[in-house]
Amino acid sequence: MKAAVLQKIQVLTIEERPQPHPGPGEVSVRVRAVGVCGSDVHYYQDGRIGTQVVTAPLVLGHECAGEIAELGEGVTDRHVGQRVAVEPGVPCRHCDMCKIGKYNLCYDMVFLGTPPIDGAYREYVVTAADFAHPIPDSMRLDQAAMCEPLAVGLHAVNLSGMKPGDSVAVLGAGSIGLYTLQCAMTAGAGATFVTDPLRYRLDIAKRLGAGRTLAPEEATEAIMEATGGSGVDVVFEAAGALDTPQQCFDIAARGGTVVFIGICSRDVQEVQFGIARRKELTIKLVRRFANVYPRSVALAAGGRVDLQCAITHHFPLGDIAEAFRLVENYEDGVVKAIIEM
Amino acid sequence: MKAAVLQKIQVLTIEERPQPHPGPGEVSVRVRAVGVCGSDVHYYQDGRIGTQVVTAPLVLGHECAGEIAELGEGVTDRHVGQRVAVEPGVPCRHCDMCKIGKYNLCYDMVFLGTPPIDGAYREYVVTAADFAHPIPDSMRLDQAAMCEPLAVGLHAVNLSGMKPGDSVAVLGAGSIGLYTLQCAMTAGAGATFVTDPLRYRLDIAKRLGAGRTLAPEEATEAIMEATGGSGVDVVFEAAGALDTPQQCFDIAARGGTVVFIGICSRDVQEVQFGIARRKELTIKLVRRFANVYPRSVALAAGGRVDLQCAITHHFPLGDIAEAFRLVENYEDGVVKAIIEM
Amino acid sequence: MKAAVLQKIQVLTIEERPQPHPGPGEVSVRVRAVGVCGSDVHYYQDGRIGTQVVTAPLVLGHECAGEIAELGEGVTDRHVGQRVAVEPGVPCRHCDMCKIGKYNLCYDMVFLGTPPIDGAYREYVVTAADFAHPIPDSMRLDQAAMCEPLAVGLHAVNLSGMKPGDSVAVLGAGSIGLYTLQCAMTAGAGATFVTDPLRYRLDIAKRLGAGRTLAPEEATEAIMEATGGSGVDVVFEAAGALDTPQQCFDIAARGGTVVFIGICSRDVQEVQFGIARRKELTIKLVRRFANVYPRSVALAAGGRVDLQCAITHHFPLGDIAEAFRLVENYEDGVVKAIIEM
Amino acid sequence: MKAAVLQKIQVLTIEERPQPHPGPGEVSVRVRAVGVCGSDVHYYQDGRIGTQVVTAPLVLGHECAGEIAELGEGVTDRHVGQRVAVEPGVPCRHCDMCKIGKYNLCYDMVFLGTPPIDGAYREYVVTAADFAHPIPDSMRLDQAAMCEPLAVGLHAVNLSGMKPGDSVAVLGAGSIGLYTLQCAMTAGAGATFVTDPLRYRLDIAKRLGAGRTLAPEEATEAIMEATGGSGVDVVFEAAGALDTPQQCFDIAARGGTVVFIGICSRDVQEVQFGIARRKELTIKLVRRFANVYPRSVALAAGGRVDLQCAITHHFPLGDIAEAFRLVENYEDGVVKAIIEM
Repeated sequence: MKAAVLQKIQVLTIEERPQPHPGPGEVSVRVRAVGVCGSDVHYYQDGRIGTQVVTAPLVLGHECAGEIAELGEGVTDRHVGQRVAVEPGVPCRHCDMCKIGKYNLCYDMVFLGTPPIDGAYREYVVTAADFAHPIPDSMRLDQAAMCEPLAVGLHAVNLSGMKPGDSVAVLGAGSIGLYTLQCAMTAGAGATFVTDPLRYRLDIAKRLGAGRTLAPEEATEAIMEATGGSGVDVVFEAAGALDTPQQCFDIAARGGTVVFIGICSRDVQEVQFGIARRKELTIKLVRRFANVYPRSVALAAGGRVDLQCAITHHFPLGDIAEAFRLVENYEDGVVKAIIEM
Repeated sequence: MKAAVLQKIQVLTIEERPQPHPGPGEVSVRVRAVGVCGSDVHYYQDGRIGTQVVTAPLVLGHECAGEIAELGEGVTDRHVGQRVAVEPGVPCRHCDMCKIGKYNLCYDMVFLGTPPIDGAYREYVVTAADFAHPIPDSMRLDQAAMCEPLAVGLHAVNLSGMKPGDSVAVLGAGSIGLYTLQCAMTAGAGATFVTDPLRYRLDIAKRLGAGRTLAPEEATEAIMEATGGSGVDVVFEAAGALDTPQQCFDIAARGGTVVFIGICSRDVQEVQFGIARRKELTIKLVRRFANVYPRSVALAAGGRVDLQCAITHHFPLGDIAEAFRLVENYEDGVVKAIIEM
Repeated sequence: MKAAVLQKIQVLTIEERPQPHPGPGEVSVRVRAVGVCGSDVHYYQDGRIGTQVVTAPLVLGHECAGEIAELGEGVTDRHVGQRVAVEPGVPCRHCDMCKIGKYNLCYDMVFLGTPPIDGAYREYVVTAADFAHPIPDSMRLDQAAMCEPLAVGLHAVNLSGMKPGDSVAVLGAGSIGLYTLQCAMTAGAGATFVTDPLRYRLDIAKRLGAGRTLAPEEATEAIMEATGGSGVDVVFEAAGALDTPQQCFDIAARGGTVVFIGICSRDVQEVQFGIARRKELTIKLVRRFANVYPRSVALAAGGRVDLQCAITHHFPLGDIAEAFRLVENYEDGVVKAIIEM
Repeated sequence: MKAAVLQKIQVLTIEERPQPHPGPGEVSVRVRAVGVCGSDVHYYQDGRIGTQVVTAPLVLGHECAGEIAELGEGVTDRHVGQRVAVEPGVPCRHCDMCKIGKYNLCYDMVFLGTPPIDGAYREYVVTAADFAHPIPDSMRLDQAAMCEPLAVGLHAVNLSGMKPGDSVAVLGAGSIGLYTLQCAMTAGAGATFVTDPLRYRLDIAKRLGAGRTLAPEEATEAIMEATGGSGVDVVFEAAGALDTPQQCFDIAARGGTVVFIGICSRDVQEVQFGIARRKELTIKLVRRFANVYPRSVALAAGGRVDLQCAITHHFPLGDIAEAFRLVENYEDGVVKAIIEM
């Protein structure tokens, strides 16, 4: 099968690799669509994200969907040809984190496209059967691949503990921000504010129903004014910018909640905890997701969330480097580029 | 001013009473609309609800709205003529329950129309200024009166801790059931089921978007089948029937939540806790509401909840006994009758 | 190996059975001590508990400890001879309940001594390695067997969400009640009340530090008086009596929590939910336990919980019927009888 | 009456002031003991804490206890001569924060010794009757003054949501750290670690039962080693140091909770949120306390918490500047200096 392999920093080649076959309880999936994630581009550019370093040739990609190609021994609740969204991280099911239900924190996680595990930019991937989630006929496979960033947003909303009527700000209108916004609206958000430096992304947020869309530098004042000086009940940081943590503290209401989703490219950030402390904020940090994939599929299938909103470009596998370049440079109104296979 | 006074069981008269005036921090409200609640009818019929007994002539009514007629000393954030939904219970603000934020459990609550406190079937009521909640121009006063049962539903949904995608059943499609349904949908309910013995009420639920509407006797089997045998994540009991608690346990999913809102006319109910225990259910019981009135107004004003859905009849104050009779007998497709004043 | 087999109602025989050997990821344990649980006696007496029916010869017993006799393939973190408390229920690790961390609600649970799974009254049992919990040298094996009812109590306390200083009542001073009491004290219980019809059991509770020990019929009045009429913050029902659920509602404080642990021998119980509703109680029902065994061992090892307190009798395997008879009839000051093997 | 007045930075004088008398619902308290808090010293040194600036002569002090001297109109549940611990912040009881039970976040808080409200370094203070908490005869008044930092610790433990058996680290062994430690132990902490640069403070923690006491610079490595590399479940930051936030993230376990109590003298702190995000930590920030004073008194009265542990020095009012100097310079083994009046 074909696979796009990161040979070293900024060098991607298309190689022929042996096709994998499923073991007991597993399925193989013929991959049809893979979303280009910011983290893929990080690995491509820098060879690392934080402590996770690429030390050998690696296949990237973890936002993927396709059709089941082969069933492993004992798999009876899936069938060949079934269209599935692939949840990219399979946990060990035995460690303490798995047993308490936080399998996203598993000590022995196998996550597609995270060193040293090969990812989804290849024709076939093998995964646990229960992590290949069936999708309805009405969902396209490129949309199904977007269940991954949607799952991040839904997990973030679940962690926030938000209640109907809570005012909400989402900082960053990339794919995760846009899906988080929609999940927050599904959970009954009252007033909603979205910030992003890119106007075309704010336009998408507006179309999805955001109450106010704001450039980051004007957002603090505008949000405080719009809320009568009290700030918003829940802030979702989905920008990964250097100064958005502080802005979260500034715009959160007393007793409010701040959810950090974004990954900042700089390790160290400066913040004033005093502001957060005087408001007695709760800060929840988000690590991927757990137990939300079937619901992500269902919310999209039921029309509560528009998966399509973030998809702006499609590329064949052979043009993957061009896709990465586009995403890296925020060119041509890109939010999410899909690699079609 | 005119007031409808419950003289004794089943005897209501219209009397002239002195008009009350607000003390410091209070306002008086010219009442324009009062909803007939099942509890009003209970008091009218039986002279009591549980341990709360009518021992002297009493003005009933607690679902009300009107215009501010007079401001007490020190009230600066309300104005005469302002249209308001009246939150009917004013707590002491000093007891332990008030201090921890559960003011609905206040040890010294003053609640309209609950013995020995006179209620809202009169031209003027006095209340704390911060319990007279401004409504937008777009909201009619009979609708504003419905913020009371809506507040019950919103409080119930908040207590449930439900998350987006949770499957939900609402047992009982009276006004509280209908508003609870809408709050659950606002909070992101996945599959929704509503039961009621009255078909015309189920039709309203259907119009509001309920997924399945069911007669109580067919509901258990239908819900279990529709959920693949697992049951629903959250059940709201808004019927107050003798056997609905057991049905809640039967249709709840493992690890699910049951919320008891309804008031049963019989004191003692029979249940099988074993079923609830094997599923490790959480049961939340609802006592009125706290801290949800402004949000109830906002959700309705923003079009998330249709206050109008339950309003089926209007009566002048002089015909209040007729209104009670109608509600008591479920005649003429009644859900909520409004007394207009 | 020898095993005590329930042939039919009230007929227990000692049989020779083939010794089981561990599969991959499993260990076999040479059982040394098994506690006689009320549920064992229920099965012995009635052949069933609720919907769980003994239809074929069955080995009972699930409160057990022993030494590891054999390691299955791939087990590297246990060793032969290691002394362990055996967590008696091994979940499937794949179903929705397992994935969210509520593995006690697993759809495919294998639980010792629950039909049709053979239990621990035999010389060897096989279990998953991570469900054989190492114990320190200071803990005797009969004490280690008591980690099972202790785990129930700790799980109940965790579910209660109790906070330091909460007043607590424990209804029922059998082994689960006594361990629940200790877990609640460990969690910072303020005033504590324990009820039981058996004076000798109350004496044990008193020695463990219970504030007040009361006969059930005097408890409601005494608790309400002692709490100034407000009732207790958290009530643990560990009696399984017919009328204790109602007593829980009667003695709980406004906004309080009631935790149902006990299993009632009668299916249907009568309660007044109105009392619970007016106090806006939360009711948590307990199904065994999950994720608490290591902590149960640690709390006992650290001296926070006295495992020994409930152990009153020891019997050899051959006298198991005599042990059952003793427990069934509450004879000779029995709380917990241990079968030694 | 006599009062110690901060005239300007580092200038404290003893002045004669008129004695205040209680209004309706209030009491006046003859102050007998006031603890010197780090925040008092901050105001004395810098004239400000964050955005709170001393612009006029101010009486500092908020950790106080005394005897009720006079009852305001309508106060029936207190009596003259009654010994009380004074909860120093009286909220408005009407704003949204008050109504939801987070009265520590009140928009109109009156807090002793916080500009522009005069504090407790004077012979009489007036407060709301329900914020003057009766203490038992067994509690000395200097101990009763320590209910204030104890309340901070208890509130922090409540916010943490910790469960019995959780491993806990407390960074900082000043009075708040020492009381937080004890509250955490009362709540069932498993392994406990305390850090402080001052050895004599660690010795107090050790006497209180801390498992390990560590210098800050050795703590990360020691804690990670002692926990088998997993870190602790709950970290309480009670140091207010520049680099402790990062250390909290470093030593917290996956899925763990970090509670920020300490006030840092520098506004801006540098942290790596990436570490916290990969562990999916929850961060709770603490603003004073709410609804814990009666329990703080009860826990101390019941012997669960040793109020005495932090009290190292006593000074007469006239020597208050000397007391401040001692505290500021960590001289003579000081933890808490009490001003006696």
